[in-house]
Formats: sequence, structure tokens, C-alpha cells
Amino acid sequence: MTARELGLPARVPGGELPERVRVWEVGARDGLQNEQSVVDVGVKLEFLDRLADAGLSTLEATSFVHPKWVPQLADAEELLARLSRRDGVRYPVLVPNERGLDRALAAGVQHIAIFGSATETFAQRNLNRTLDGQFAMFEPVVSRARAEGLDVRGYVSMCFGDPWEGPVDAAQVISVGKRLVDMGCSQLSLGDTIGVATPGQVEALLAGFVDAGVDLDALAVHFHDTYGQALSNTLAALRAGVSTVDSSAGGLGGCPYAESATGNLATEDLVWMLDGLGVEHGVDLDKLADTSAWMAQRLGRPSPSRVVRALRG
Amino acid sequence: MTARELGLPARVPGGELPERVRVWEVGARDGLQNEQSVVDVGVKLEFLDRLADAGLSTLEATSFVHPKWVPQLADAEELLARLSRRDGVRYPVLVPNERGLDRALAAGVQHIAIFGSATETFAQRNLNRTLDGQFAMFEPVVSRARAEGLDVRGYVSMCFGDPWEGPVDAAQVISVGKRLVDMGCSQLSLGDTIGVATPGQVEALLAGFVDAGVDLDALAVHFHDTYGQALSNTLAALRAGVSTVDSSAGGLGGCPYAESATGNLATEDLVWMLDGLGVEHGVDLDKLADTSAWMAQRLGRPSPSRVVRALRG
Repeated sequence: MTARELGLPARVPGGELPERVRVWEVGARDGLQNEQSVVDVGVKLEFLDRLADAGLSTLEATSFVHPKWVPQLADAEELLARLSRRDGVRYPVLVPNERGLDRALAAGVQHIAIFGSATETFAQRNLNRTLDGQFAMFEPVVSRARAEGLDVRGYVSMCFGDPWEGPVDAAQVISVGKRLVDMGCSQLSLGDTIGVATPGQVEALLAGFVDAGVDLDALAVHFHDTYGQALSNTLAALRAGVSTVDSSAGGLGGCPYAESATGNLATEDLVWMLDGLGVEHGVDLDKLADTSAWMAQRLGRPSPSRVVRALRG
Repeated sequence: MTARELGLPARVPGGELPERVRVWEVGARDGLQNEQSVVDVGVKLEFLDRLADAGLSTLEATSFVHPKWVPQLADAEELLARLSRRDGVRYPVLVPNERGLDRALAAGVQHIAIFGSATETFAQRNLNRTLDGQFAMFEPVVSRARAEGLDVRGYVSMCFGDPWEGPVDAAQVISVGKRLVDMGCSQLSLGDTIGVATPGQVEALLAGFVDAGVDLDALAVHFHDTYGQALSNTLAALRAGVSTVDSSAGGLGGCPYAESATGNLATEDLVWMLDGLGVEHGVDLDKLADTSAWMAQRLGRPSPSRVVRALRG
């Protein structure tokens, strides 16, 4: 049985939903970079190919962060050289700085993402920059990328809570996001990096962005399931008018055996909900669950996705 | 950091929320009856005591189902004899039939619950009755219980999907629920026993009950997290006006190592969301997470609750 087979509700009192959601699949990048195992490049290529087969049309492929920091993705050049790109599928790549952009351009990348922080402490710890200083690093990346015809997404991390600073002021998040949009980012991905937010806080932040003149079409949401809130927060964001949702096949990036499950929202759990809500997404859940079960075997542990465990456990 | 510390949202566009939610804690009954390990009665008593200490005011304590079917709860008489009941805490007990009611009355129980099925096949498999025939079994239980001054809750299982029949017609669920209300049940607990439902379907069923004249105050929701949908469905139910939510401390009843995680919504994950939404619940999350971590140790496996693993993993 699938959620869709239960029948679609005649009315949805909780708010309008988008007709279609773009699933921004981050498993190959955000997922694998947070797994303990380093996966062979051949497995990554098969993974991306299977995700495209399953109907996912945005596959964040890898990262040009220095291999010293993310050894899991040290094979970015080889992966992109061997990747057989599909028509209609985008393969964005994370780019931290100008050196990363050089590598991305050399690899023929057309979509990049930069990774900004909403908080001072995380900017210093993750980027070795002040909150203000990060923009000086991003500015030449975005302007050169745009001049080369690339599309640029801006991640905003720690949008709700920060492990060092605690609660994050929405005005600060909006200020950081606005600067990235003004700089030339076509979309912001608002990240609850430590997974603490709840639906009302999500709605309030989205409303704040709209009040600040950022269109909902330029906003994506990126939730982590550390406290089990990822899908509820996604529901709230969809009903607030967001139509791009980040998720990770099989919940890659969080291990069900680890002390805390800090993983991304699992794409399968998202797709199950979208199916039941009658929201189009273009994903073949069976193929996707097969792919995640296959990847879980490669990683030597069960998938954190509840749907994958229920369907393929 | 807690969800509450993030600050409460100024507006909640997705629908009104109740000011206060009654958490109907089912861990000691629905949780433990679905665990492989049989827990010693002393541990159960300490568990109930710790749950009351954590502020939970409705503790479904045990079941008078025949020990042949649920050996995990075969100690119901001893548990109730040794239970030190707290003022302001209710200890409902599941009662399947008149024999169970006799045992409950002898044990001094004041709140019982009966367990009905929304589908023909589950009625036959779980109760050995037809869908219609189950009411003949319940009727003397409810009427005698009411005559003795007991409060009776009616569970309705398989409200959305059934493993043998597939999708379940909402009209049939409403018909079963109405008969239980008319019989004298003060509250219905609408169960998504196999965890397949999504928020729009939840809202549609609740709206159907209201259209059929059943007050929202007489409805509780009972979600399983098999497909990761339990908390999103709860959010939808809260916004539709439900204010009693069933959940299980630490997600008891579902094992994170099992092939499929079929457990109840974890009370901690629910409380985290309620905290962030500014909905009162009376539960001390720290004490509850301590209790669930302690019980997970007794069961020899990690808690399925994401909050428990994040806070106490």
C-alpha cells in the first residue's frame, strides 16, 4: 500500500499546498560527507545514476571544499569527470571559495552552492571568518560564477539554533539571507543545521523573509531530524508556500546507531507525505527505496529512513 | 537548548492550536506489549512512578487481555495491586471483554479502554469477531463499566490503512467510532495502526467525525511512526482542533534495530514540538528523557526516540 492509495483528502484546512515540490536531493554531498565511511567513486557514480533513474532531477553531486576538511568528497574532480549527466537533471556542487570555483569551472559545473552561516560563532568555526567577513569571501565567488553563466544557491546554516550561541534571531538570519540574494544567489536554502526548530518558528522565519521582500520561490528549506521535527517542519513550510525541499536519500548523513541521529530529512519519508497530500514530485518511491537500501549495504548499516526500513528492512 | 528557548512564533498561519494538550502516555501498555523483552513488574512500577514524576497525568498502565496473547502484560493484577496511585493521575487499563472487566473491577480500576477495529479483517484477526460482532462483545463491557462509574475510552484501530484490506473508507471508520460513542465511550482514540496516513487524510477523517456530530473534545489521535509520519500527522490533528494525543515514552514499542520500526510516536518528540509551538503539556522533558534512557537500558537497546537519542545518547 502507498500513501497515495489511501485516497486524497477533499479539503486541507491547514493551508494551501504547492501543486508540485522540487526535491533537492543532497544525499551524495551533504549525506556522504557526514558518513563515517568513505565511499568509492564508482559507488557514488552508480548512486547518482540510480537517483536520476528514480526521477530526482536535482542531485547535489559533491563539494570542492578542501579534502583536508571533507576527505569523504576528495574525489570531486574524478566524480565529475566520469559523471554521465542526464538531460533535465541538475548537478549542483558546493563551492566554498574562489579556489573551489576554479575547480568547479574546470570540471564543467553549471550550478554551484555556497555555504553561509547565520551566526558569528559558526562562521568562525566552519569558515574561519566573521559573520560579516564571510561575505567578502563569497562576493568574488558569486560574481565570477554569475559572469560565467552559473546558477548560485546560497545555504544559510544555523537558521534557528546554534550549538554555541543558542537561539538565533530571525532578523539576523534574514539579514544574512538578503545579502546573499542581493549578491546574486537565485535561491536560499534555510537550514536548521542542528534540528531544533518547530513548525511555528519555521513559519515565522518564512514570513519574515517575505516581509523583507524575498519571494517564496527563492526559498528552500533544509531540515535535520535530530529531534524528529524535520517532516513536521517541512509540512509547515509547504503550507507557508515553499516548494523546494532539501532531503537526503535514505536519510544519509545520520546513522541510526550513532549517539545522536543528526541526519537530513530522508527523501523517502518526504515523498511518502507528498504522495498522501497529492503533491507532485516526480520520484519513483520503489526505485528510490531500492537505491537507499543498496547504499545502506555499501555503508554497512541500516538506513535511518523509516520508509526505507519499513519497505526494505 | 530547548525548542521553547528558540522563542515562540508571533503568528501561526497553519491553523489555530489548542492552548493545552493532554498527553495520553501509552508506553507502559501499548509500548511494553510490543517489546520483545518481558519487563519485570518492579521495573514497570518504577517506570510508571517516574512517568508520573515527569508530569504525565494519564498513564495507560496495563491490559487485561489474556496472558496467552500478551505475555508481556501477564502481571496486570500484581502491577495494579502494588501501584501507588498519585492524586491527579489517571491509570486507564485496556479491557478486551467481560472477563477482563471483572479483573479490572477487582483491581479497583477507574478508567478502562476497549480496543475496536475499523476493518472486518482486523476485527476477525485481532478479536475473532466480525466487524459488527465486535459491538456485541463491547456492549456489556461498556454498559457494566458505566454502571460501575468507570470512564471508558474506545480505541479505533486501522483508521486509515489495513495490512490485509488496504485503504480504509473514512465512512466506515466514522460509523465504527459513532457506535462506540453511542455505546458510552467518552473518547475515541483514532489509530493509524500501521502508520501509513498523511496529514490531509488525518484532517479529512477528523472533519468527517465533526460532520457526523462527534465533538473534537471526544477525539484523540494515535499515530505510529512506521513511515515517519507520526509527528506531522499530530501537527495536522492539533491544528484541526484535537487536544488529546497518544504517545509512548521513548517511542517504546518500536525497536530501532528491527526490520521495520512500527513504534508509537515518542512522547519526547511530541513534547519537543509542543514546547516550540507554545502549547502547554505539563511534562518535564529532562525527567522524561532520563526515564526513557533508563528504560532503554533495561530493554538492552537504544531508544527509538530521536529526542532521547539526541539528549541522552
